[in-house]
Amino acid sequence: MTSAITQVTGFRAVGVTCGLKQSGNPDLALVLSDGPCTAAAVFTTNAFKAAPVLYDMALLERVGGMRGVVINAGNANAVTGQQGLRDAEQMARLTEQACQLPADSVFVMSTGVIGEPMPMHKLERGIALAARAIATPAGEQGQDAARAIMTTDTVSKEAFLQTTVSGQPVRLGGMAKGSGMIHPNMATMLAVVVTDANVAATALQAALRQAAAASFNRVSVDGDTSTNDTLLLLASGQAGNPAIEPESAAFGQFVAALTQLCIKLARMIARDGEGATKLIEITVSGAATEAEADRAAKTVATSPLVKTALFGNDPNWGRVLAAIGRSNVQVNPTAVSLWLGDFLLLSAGEPQPFDAVAASQWLAGANEVKLRAQLGVGQAQATVWTCDFSYKYVEINAEYHT
Amino acid sequence: MTSAITQVTGFRAVGVTCGLKQSGNPDLALVLSDGPCTAAAVFTTNAFKAAPVLYDMALLERVGGMRGVVINAGNANAVTGQQGLRDAEQMARLTEQACQLPADSVFVMSTGVIGEPMPMHKLERGIALAARAIATPAGEQGQDAARAIMTTDTVSKEAFLQTTVSGQPVRLGGMAKGSGMIHPNMATMLAVVVTDANVAATALQAALRQAAAASFNRVSVDGDTSTNDTLLLLASGQAGNPAIEPESAAFGQFVAALTQLCIKLARMIARDGEGATKLIEITVSGAATEAEADRAAKTVATSPLVKTALFGNDPNWGRVLAAIGRSNVQVNPTAVSLWLGDFLLLSAGEPQPFDAVAASQWLAGANEVKLRAQLGVGQAQATVWTCDFSYKYVEINAEYHT
Repeated sequence: MTSAITQVTGFRAVGVTCGLKQSGNPDLALVLSDGPCTAAAVFTTNAFKAAPVLYDMALLERVGGMRGVVINAGNANAVTGQQGLRDAEQMARLTEQACQLPADSVFVMSTGVIGEPMPMHKLERGIALAARAIATPAGEQGQDAARAIMTTDTVSKEAFLQTTVSGQPVRLGGMAKGSGMIHPNMATMLAVVVTDANVAATALQAALRQAAAASFNRVSVDGDTSTNDTLLLLASGQAGNPAIEPESAAFGQFVAALTQLCIKLARMIARDGEGATKLIEITVSGAATEAEADRAAKTVATSPLVKTALFGNDPNWGRVLAAIGRSNVQVNPTAVSLWLGDFLLLSAGEPQPFDAVAASQWLAGANEVKLRAQLGVGQAQATVWTCDFSYKYVEINAEYHT
Repeated sequence: MTSAITQVTGFRAVGVTCGLKQSGNPDLALVLSDGPCTAAAVFTTNAFKAAPVLYDMALLERVGGMRGVVINAGNANAVTGQQGLRDAEQMARLTEQACQLPADSVFVMSTGVIGEPMPMHKLERGIALAARAIATPAGEQGQDAARAIMTTDTVSKEAFLQTTVSGQPVRLGGMAKGSGMIHPNMATMLAVVVTDANVAATALQAALRQAAAASFNRVSVDGDTSTNDTLLLLASGQAGNPAIEPESAAFGQFVAALTQLCIKLARMIARDGEGATKLIEITVSGAATEAEADRAAKTVATSPLVKTALFGNDPNWGRVLAAIGRSNVQVNPTAVSLWLGDFLLLSAGEPQPFDAVAASQWLAGANEVKLRAQLGVGQAQATVWTCDFSYKYVEINAEYHT
């Protein structure tokens, strides 16, 4: 089967099983480009950055001509001390050697349990398997790569789109994982996006920051930020368009396409939030600034009371207001309005009569719920994505033992 | 039965039933002093302050010689527009008239559902009943007052202590309610503390702010701040001590006693958090400032991943580290240490071998769990209280319909 990544000219991807997951599912992914790529990335802002994050940050500063990324699930290689740093570097070295690539050409990502040493013998075996699979012309296992990076995800997450930049067709494909510990402060969990567009390095990093701000940085499952969050973008340039420079018209086209792709992946993460039964889209408008709209929407998106009410199909709008009220943004209490889907619940600060039974029935049948709040202060707005909060979230996180 | 409030010289308290709660339990509390009191209060910082909060804030500014407070459960009178403001004032007026007290001598508090108009006919009947009960010399119903203010609380919360100020015995008694929507940003939910100490008005407000900062403002159940949070302190002066002035030695003694009483009530709230099976005490030391210690501890206290792990008796310390790491405080990753009870999990940034099975068994048997983190940066520390996060929390909040 064709995957989103491998639909982009010049990229290959495989997923293999090496015993890092107890389930026996694929747990090691390898994404490679046929030629050198420009790379950009955004990383977690968590103070306890995992070893692979520290490795990649240094690599991104130092060198160009990147060829790919190796990713394992089952162990996050986070808070693993000095040994963890050596293991992350070794993971890159083993991959580069197995694939006959130059040193310092492969990024590393890990996800899974925190604080356990990486079982390097399993990883070594997995890397050898992946190198063999990706070298085989028939080895079209791109979708296994997206499956290999899953942890508590229930579905794999891929997105592809084709657009036109400077009159040239350009392709973008990506995969992501993430279901819990989702409240990115730069990027969320692990995501890899590849493109065949030709993009100048500075333009690529700027484009990724802008796209992440409007997509992965606007999704929350539980308010918890991972130690391993990484969003990596590789651009092979094989589309043959003139190099995209910052602040050009082509840059605007590229950012728009990249943002659209990232929003697709971010929404998939929210919809597949641990235990989720609904995707919740929260739009706050009428805010003083975009940052305030974003903060108000995220406060609603992380309120356990709002999220449990939506799980219970309860149009309990008082909890939404209480969350906005504590978010420390400017609001005009006598001008605030609130909608749940098409139900107007509050208008200019006064509660409105509405059919609560019909609203509850609508919630029960909806797998996507839009909440809109108008703060009555300014013109700025922001949209964030989250999910409801169910018994299943507690089960997953109380019973996923270390 | 004697209650904590009525053990303080000169105070009476009753709780009656007037049909505001569907359960038929007491739902209206009245606390009165035999003579005029000095009052201090701290209120929610939520932007959508409930009508009784706005009423009390204005009253506290305007007048002295306070006589008591009337409190209802079942309806929060919050986000109720102009009618809500009129209803809060009417609630005070009805109480003052029924008890033959001067106008502007009674505070008002409400807790319950947000956004529903207050059923004033029920309230009127309840106030009449309460006025009759409190006037009856045999009507020692103080414990019913603490029961009347409960919502999802499973136990009523009272505390009493006697101390000595300037060589004079002084008594403090208080009651509180709160189980969900607990993450005070000034005070938590509803609490009333009374004392017979003679305290100057400015000293009383300063004492209450200090005590609240180290008690109610250090407790969190779910990170959600209520629209109705109010902590009210009434001082009758009947102990006969010389008036306590700010920054005196007596002030220090009084603040210490008041803080101790408030911590007792705050811990009761955390222990009775919605669905809680354990009280969790989190101490962060070695921080750059007390504000940073407080922020790091609160980030752990509101992490759904930490709280579900503790419910599952899982010593999953990686989640604790990840929460501290995203709290935006200075940490030294190579100097951080972490303890769960007596188990040392991380020392100077390196994971320590520990008996995970024994730790899990200890968690399973503990109804109080201490988590300690040393950030390795400075000398400041803070302690916060919270509870674990169980299926029952989701049940309570998904099935408590509006």
